[in-house]
Amino acid sequence: MEDKVLDKALRDIEAYYRTQGMARALGFGKRPAVLVIDFQKGITDPERPAGCHLDAEIEHTVRLLDVARKKDVPVFFFVIAYDRSLLDGGLLVKKVPTLARFVAGSDDVQLDPRLTPGPNEPVFAKQYGSCFFGTPLASSLTALNVDTVILTGCITSGCVRATAHDALQHGFRPMLPRECVGDRARIPHEVNLMDIQARIGDVLPLSAVLTHIEQGESA
Amino acid sequence: MEDKVLDKALRDIEAYYRTQGMARALGFGKRPAVLVIDFQKGITDPERPAGCHLDAEIEHTVRLLDVARKKDVPVFFFVIAYDRSLLDGGLLVKKVPTLARFVAGSDDVQLDPRLTPGPNEPVFAKQYGSCFFGTPLASSLTALNVDTVILTGCITSGCVRATAHDALQHGFRPMLPRECVGDRARIPHEVNLMDIQARIGDVLPLSAVLTHIEQGESA
Amino acid sequence: MEDKVLDKALRDIEAYYRTQGMARALGFGKRPAVLVIDFQKGITDPERPAGCHLDAEIEHTVRLLDVARKKDVPVFFFVIAYDRSLLDGGLLVKKVPTLARFVAGSDDVQLDPRLTPGPNEPVFAKQYGSCFFGTPLASSLTALNVDTVILTGCITSGCVRATAHDALQHGFRPMLPRECVGDRARIPHEVNLMDIQARIGDVLPLSAVLTHIEQGESA
Amino acid sequence: MEDKVLDKALRDIEAYYRTQGMARALGFGKRPAVLVIDFQKGITDPERPAGCHLDAEIEHTVRLLDVARKKDVPVFFFVIAYDRSLLDGGLLVKKVPTLARFVAGSDDVQLDPRLTPGPNEPVFAKQYGSCFFGTPLASSLTALNVDTVILTGCITSGCVRATAHDALQHGFRPMLPRECVGDRARIPHEVNLMDIQARIGDVLPLSAVLTHIEQGESA
Repeated sequence: MEDKVLDKALRDIEAYYRTQGMARALGFGKRPAVLVIDFQKGITDPERPAGCHLDAEIEHTVRLLDVARKKDVPVFFFVIAYDRSLLDGGLLVKKVPTLARFVAGSDDVQLDPRLTPGPNEPVFAKQYGSCFFGTPLASSLTALNVDTVILTGCITSGCVRATAHDALQHGFRPMLPRECVGDRARIPHEVNLMDIQARIGDVLPLSAVLTHIEQGESA
Repeated sequence: MEDKVLDKALRDIEAYYRTQGMARALGFGKRPAVLVIDFQKGITDPERPAGCHLDAEIEHTVRLLDVARKKDVPVFFFVIAYDRSLLDGGLLVKKVPTLARFVAGSDDVQLDPRLTPGPNEPVFAKQYGSCFFGTPLASSLTALNVDTVILTGCITSGCVRATAHDALQHGFRPMLPRECVGDRARIPHEVNLMDIQARIGDVLPLSAVLTHIEQGESA
Repeated sequence: MEDKVLDKALRDIEAYYRTQGMARALGFGKRPAVLVIDFQKGITDPERPAGCHLDAEIEHTVRLLDVARKKDVPVFFFVIAYDRSLLDGGLLVKKVPTLARFVAGSDDVQLDPRLTPGPNEPVFAKQYGSCFFGTPLASSLTALNVDTVILTGCITSGCVRATAHDALQHGFRPMLPRECVGDRARIPHEVNLMDIQARIGDVLPLSAVLTHIEQGESA
Repeated sequence: MEDKVLDKALRDIEAYYRTQGMARALGFGKRPAVLVIDFQKGITDPERPAGCHLDAEIEHTVRLLDVARKKDVPVFFFVIAYDRSLLDGGLLVKKVPTLARFVAGSDDVQLDPRLTPGPNEPVFAKQYGSCFFGTPLASSLTALNVDTVILTGCITSGCVRATAHDALQHGFRPMLPRECVGDRARIPHEVNLMDIQARIGDVLPLSAVLTHIEQGESA
């Protein structure tokens, strides 16, 4: 399918959504945090069984982190990791068996080496799509008075969408710098970004997110 | 965009997903329940501001409910409904302002009249996309020893997908009879069904779901 | 058991807790809300089967609400209410069968008439002990940038403690004005307040809470 | 305070509760799991700053585990463990600063050596009181069709009560073998067990739990 055919169709749907009272901008709140989702070796190395090409998205995320750290914006990293029993993976590891590779302690669950957490930037293990599910993330954000989450990482149609949806449900503003999220395939990437913009959060150019952070007060 | 162009592209992506260890069948468990999502007048009446065309999906759901009730399968109905303060709608009513119409007690939050809950079939009010979020649904299902949820209703790319995702996260098998779920637009409908089949639950023909229920023991 | 014997024993335990690194003050955050828990006719009318004596606690809560409203502090009311199927009550209505009386729409689930919600003060139905469980409360608080919850209502050893515990777990500071929470029996009331002070939230005299609110900026 | 004075007072309250329609037995369901709560060196070694005396409770738990494993009852272990940033501890580590000792990887978060998990018995890290909060436990139990949780560990008035309460809220039957749960102090131990029996779960002699498991079918 030609890219411009899909793009035209999606722009038409977006216009229709707006006439239905959907797809309004949420805007940034007062205090953002950055969530870096599943940029772990087992996914970011295209040579591995569940890997795909995410070099550009990682590079853009590194740039975002540089700016965020200068303004003391909290950063949380997430990796998918399971107990060797896989009992913490519930039904998900049955639906998506490739995830069973991601056993805690294995190389596949290490962060991509281009990303280096600072001493106050935790790496949370998660077992499901949403970074909020089965983790204390919402509590940590609330305790920090965070009201906005800037989402980066992969996969747009999987864990990124799930995290954006849970962020909104939990009362946090989900902001997605488009260049910082990636997927295995173009159609689900574009359609999920449209869905997110329509009903979940704001999809923005990275430049707009950087400008917002740079203009903000230090936390 | 021509339907067959999209269909061909999605089938190619599905084939790729299967080579990556995704999109396995979960299968039914031992005890299903049916969830009927957001078939309320404000959405199912195409003349209303947030309405769309869902007649076929409702008709198929009515057929499913007839079969389910003969086998004592529990049924739960859901409608979106807010307090007049809208404080229970959090950020969602800002992102999707049309939802602010759905105030508890108004006609828009009444079930579509083609659906009639039985005396043991509760109608749960919900405020967010997922039927599990901000409701005691998961607890009720667990207390009934339910392990499988058959999802019907609308909108595929909104509340249906959100509910399917949360069902899987909570440990329930999400089964979607394709004819019973509907959307405002074809592309997000088809792409979200592909996403669900790839990583969340099983998308099946209604006939397969009916056969499974009919062959099951009474609860 | 004589009151002073229990009091002495509890003060000794508290002193021991402090030597173990427990029972520190959390303090107020920047933006409080008041939660009024289960002051509904079926509980506050001592003539009814599940009723008990709570007149003083209601009177103190009314005084707190007067002060809170002058400072635009958000107020949320909660009542226990079930669908007639009781399916939303899960196992709790089996453990505590008296709760099965509290069917939505019945007089038992009406707020005590001494409490009158304002137009922007929602009444949330809840089915379990914690006001956070099976409700969108945490999301509403986060969307309002609330970081502190002042708890009033009943029963100290039941829904009040459960709500305090979930507040802390969700990242909100639980503050309990001692005069505003009540119980059916003195021993569980006092011991649960000690437990809360030790590991969950701050138990304060009402006067301290009023002073804090009065000195705060309007929201 | 003399033990028999407290006991007499608590039995009187229990009798009153029963006249109010509280404190019914839930009974076992069809498929139990055992949860072992916070038996980690930092708590079970009385020489350490947050330690206390729990030898008898551990011994009784070991006996329970022996019987459970013969019947293939699933077992889950829990330890409190935080990221070095303590950001996953939210407000709890401020209220109870002694918990800040329990950093992931430190000796304090190792299981007591008298407890040895089998290869299919996961050890879940938790950050809050309830084993269900911020963990995927409920999902794992549901995916295993577990409907009953047998609770052992410490502290009765802290993490054990919180876990029992959340178990009931999530739809699982909480069963507490009295000999297998322990506390730092007698009064909160006894009063919390009374609270649990009144409104949360069933408090039983260990012998009754062992008999039930031994008579059950293998899973």
